[in-house]
Amino acid sequence: MAPYSKLSKEKLKNLKSDLEKQFEEIKKKGLHLDMSRGKPSKAQLDIGIGMMDVLTSESDLVSSDGVDCRNYGVLDGISDARKLLADLSEVPERSVIIYGNSSLNVMFDTMSRAMTHGFMGSTPWGRLDHVKFLCPVPGYDRHFAITEFFGIEMINVPLLETGPDMDMVEELVAKDPLIKGIWCVPKYSNPTGISYSDETVRRFARLKPAAKDFRIFWDNAYSIHHLYDDKRVVVLELLNECIKVGNPDIVIKFISTSKVSFPGSGIAALAASRGNLEDARRYMKYQTIGHDKLNQLRHVRYFKDMLGVYEHMRKHAAILRPKFEKVDEVLTKELGGLGIGTWTKPLGGYFISFDSMEGCAKAIVAKAKEAGLVMTDAGATYPYGKDPKDCNIRIAPSFPTVEELEIASKIFVLSVKLVSIEKLLNA
Amino acid sequence: MAPYSKLSKEKLKNLKSDLEKQFEEIKKKGLHLDMSRGKPSKAQLDIGIGMMDVLTSESDLVSSDGVDCRNYGVLDGISDARKLLADLSEVPERSVIIYGNSSLNVMFDTMSRAMTHGFMGSTPWGRLDHVKFLCPVPGYDRHFAITEFFGIEMINVPLLETGPDMDMVEELVAKDPLIKGIWCVPKYSNPTGISYSDETVRRFARLKPAAKDFRIFWDNAYSIHHLYDDKRVVVLELLNECIKVGNPDIVIKFISTSKVSFPGSGIAALAASRGNLEDARRYMKYQTIGHDKLNQLRHVRYFKDMLGVYEHMRKHAAILRPKFEKVDEVLTKELGGLGIGTWTKPLGGYFISFDSMEGCAKAIVAKAKEAGLVMTDAGATYPYGKDPKDCNIRIAPSFPTVEELEIASKIFVLSVKLVSIEKLLNA
Repeated sequence: MAPYSKLSKEKLKNLKSDLEKQFEEIKKKGLHLDMSRGKPSKAQLDIGIGMMDVLTSESDLVSSDGVDCRNYGVLDGISDARKLLADLSEVPERSVIIYGNSSLNVMFDTMSRAMTHGFMGSTPWGRLDHVKFLCPVPGYDRHFAITEFFGIEMINVPLLETGPDMDMVEELVAKDPLIKGIWCVPKYSNPTGISYSDETVRRFARLKPAAKDFRIFWDNAYSIHHLYDDKRVVVLELLNECIKVGNPDIVIKFISTSKVSFPGSGIAALAASRGNLEDARRYMKYQTIGHDKLNQLRHVRYFKDMLGVYEHMRKHAAILRPKFEKVDEVLTKELGGLGIGTWTKPLGGYFISFDSMEGCAKAIVAKAKEAGLVMTDAGATYPYGKDPKDCNIRIAPSFPTVEELEIASKIFVLSVKLVSIEKLLNA
Repeated sequence: MAPYSKLSKEKLKNLKSDLEKQFEEIKKKGLHLDMSRGKPSKAQLDIGIGMMDVLTSESDLVSSDGVDCRNYGVLDGISDARKLLADLSEVPERSVIIYGNSSLNVMFDTMSRAMTHGFMGSTPWGRLDHVKFLCPVPGYDRHFAITEFFGIEMINVPLLETGPDMDMVEELVAKDPLIKGIWCVPKYSNPTGISYSDETVRRFARLKPAAKDFRIFWDNAYSIHHLYDDKRVVVLELLNECIKVGNPDIVIKFISTSKVSFPGSGIAALAASRGNLEDARRYMKYQTIGHDKLNQLRHVRYFKDMLGVYEHMRKHAAILRPKFEKVDEVLTKELGGLGIGTWTKPLGGYFISFDSMEGCAKAIVAKAKEAGLVMTDAGATYPYGKDPKDCNIRIAPSFPTVEELEIASKIFVLSVKLVSIEKLLNA
């Protein structure tokens, strides 16, 4: 079909009336569909159900390093769990501390720690009048929410196909000592699905910020969340790159098994240089007597090693792949060539990123809602919820079934079409 | 035997040489004993081993309020867990939020939150030049450590038989708006074992601090940790008292199952007024997507209700009671009437508090260490580790066996005697 922009107003109006009828038909069904959350489906949870059986009252609850996992203690986590999450983080065991059930919590804690105690002896950020953070956009709303919650000013940096615009990052951090950090999702980024190039990682490792306590918050949320076994993306490991160029303290890596084992009951980890880990331990020593080691043991006994984790992730991929493909199929069939939207075809992660015509995203999300489809709020992928062009929409295909996604995608494309026509008619 | 203070120097010297021989004999054994930590013993961990079997891959992992406990979500915790920990806290379910594996972590978080965001709209404490906290002494070293870590000045308040010296508390908080809170362990206090009187609780409820964001940090660590079934101490419930007198927001209660189920893998809770809970939720919303609900479900399915918990606590008491009694027996036999030390006979909790002659505690702990017995550092029960009279020593009888405790107690009394004689000889 011809691009909408080439159609006469007359044709657009006819098309609109046609589409409105279709939309009304769907509305009548009173559907409740949700493509808003990067939440694993029940089928994905069932993959790991065997984890419920690995520890029983008959099990040896002592870890291989001799710790009774039921009792207090062991701030860093049991050795086997450190080893597993170190492998997952592509760093040595000594570079990892295990935390509780969520890496979001570790990121929040790390930000909170910077506010009250700084990093490695720096002035606590909360004692400064003004602190800024770089936010590659579009990005993850919860990163932005944490940053805003602590009163830190956010600066948008465009996320390119190769990662954040490094020319801009380098220039900004070199000249402004108030810029204290940057959020990164280096692989299968939320929401665009892009992965950072080797060159981007190397430039991050060589970054020379004016602020000595500048930190790269490296959220490795989707490091092993490939959709295609034969198209696995490899991102250069940053900590090692930083060490190689004598810049070991600039990065803090975060990882968890939330979307590997169970989202509510995984284990999380922080990986960083020795200096950063000592800094983190100094804090943890007051914060806790140790995280849940039985759950660490449960993970280790269940997965055994990275091969076990990879095998497990293939099962997740088998469930997720048809969902991503279904959404893409509907979008391609219904929007292909119309010039009213583009979208990503990620090789991993949890999201498809959709860009509408300028000024249409909010209206599209509102329209979809009329027909019972909940999307992530338009704007959520930008700091302060403000997408300057009002065009980005995050699509999360993981939770609904393929059948539900087919209907949801149809509602979505109808909404895109109707709002786009409206926009063109009013142009 | 006569009090040491009545003995001649000659007699003391003879006694000393005798005791030194005994001490050398014990030293030769090369023992490694530890009465330093309020840590449950292996036998206590084994009581709850059935908890490892309540959830399997065959279990319904959906809570009674319809939540798949494996997935993301539910900030407040599942309803059944809230109910159980509300009962444990003696408050309604609506007054409780469930957290992760440790109440220490919740207390730390609450302090950190006050530093970065204040309470219910107040100025963040970290933005103030000076903040003070009242610390009943002797008290819990980790409370003091958290307070010091956040740069808050600590003011000692004597802990009487009825609780903190309320005349002093009332006077201090009324006149000084920099005093923002107080640490309390209302039942079977750490380390003295005393419990607050009804009058003390009522005076806390009626407290009128100059600081509007003053909070009582009510650490209910030992609320059901009775040693004697027939001598259970009941402490008046504070939140309800506060509500009755129109002062609902002044208290934040903390509780956990760390010394009920497993110390490393329990569940914790915060109980407070609606205003305080809303405040806490506003923070949690950024901090986490929810705590470990499978562990919540595991606790609920295992204990079922408070009767189940009480039954379970009786088993802990049966293990702990002979340990407390053994220490008391040795101390009474060896130190009774000597006038060189007094100690508490708690009805619950985890500690015996020992007071030596002034200026002897550090030397006693050092002496005991010579013979392989690790005690909590003298001074640890006071802010900044400074016991002004250098006389308080915390004895933790829970972890060693009764046999080990007998030897440990003998080393301890020998150390007390030797250091006391030294002190008297140099007087």
